[in-house]
Amino acid sequence: MTSAQPLAKTASPPYYAVIFASRRTDGDRGYDQMAERMAALASQMPGFLGVESVRDVDGFGITVSYWESEDAIRQWKAHAEHQIAQRTGKAVWYTDYIVRIAKVQREYRRMPEQLRQRSTSAKPIEILPSKWF
Amino acid sequence: MTSAQPLAKTASPPYYAVIFASRRTDGDRGYDQMAERMAALASQMPGFLGVESVRDVDGFGITVSYWESEDAIRQWKAHAEHQIAQRTGKAVWYTDYIVRIAKVQREYRRMPEQLRQRSTSAKPIEILPSKWF
Repeated sequence: MTSAQPLAKTASPPYYAVIFASRRTDGDRGYDQMAERMAALASQMPGFLGVESVRDVDGFGITVSYWESEDAIRQWKAHAEHQIAQRTGKAVWYTDYIVRIAKVQREYRRMPEQLRQRSTSAKPIEILPSKWF
Repeated sequence: MTSAQPLAKTASPPYYAVIFASRRTDGDRGYDQMAERMAALASQMPGFLGVESVRDVDGFGITVSYWESEDAIRQWKAHAEHQIAQRTGKAVWYTDYIVRIAKVQREYRRMPEQLRQRSTSAKPIEILPSKWF
């Protein structure tokens, strides 16, 4: 079964990526609920382009969110609710993590015609229901 | 249980990231064996800095490999065995994927003292046994 999560439909480079690699502590401890809330919040931020996120059964996760500008990234990082989530992440949810801010310079993709047609009829930005950070 | 996969111990920016997001087709079809071989090969390439990789049970995967320069990325992309893997990926393993080449400009991290000490005593680059592309 192909994953229901779509690849992020970003436009042509340049744009910016926030690469967030992390390892979870044991147990949920409010993580899922906060992640769902953050996904909803981020998608409403100016300059948000999309997100791809995955975590395996051992708790290793990578989330890449895409943004129009560095300023959009700064605004999202400074958002009050997101600040609380970041502090809780440090204290409770993650054993360790690295956030890397990068400028996407070029890209290439394979997207079969069937998927391409499906994607043009869908709304341009689709976000995950939860667990994306 | 914390994941056994370490975060990639990259040095200070700038350096480059290849962000590979993909969705697998059903079944292994030689994927695991090729992935293991590619991980071993890549780690021997000049300019390779490290890799982080995760795929969930639904087949959605993100692999981010880190490189010293764009030239190092080009050399790895052009490697003969890797070229075969790329072609097989298009034909057999992936329903769709996007590769994004990005320049990492800054980073911040949480790595507790205990993990920090462990990491300095380990060899600087650790790669995954398999499934990293």
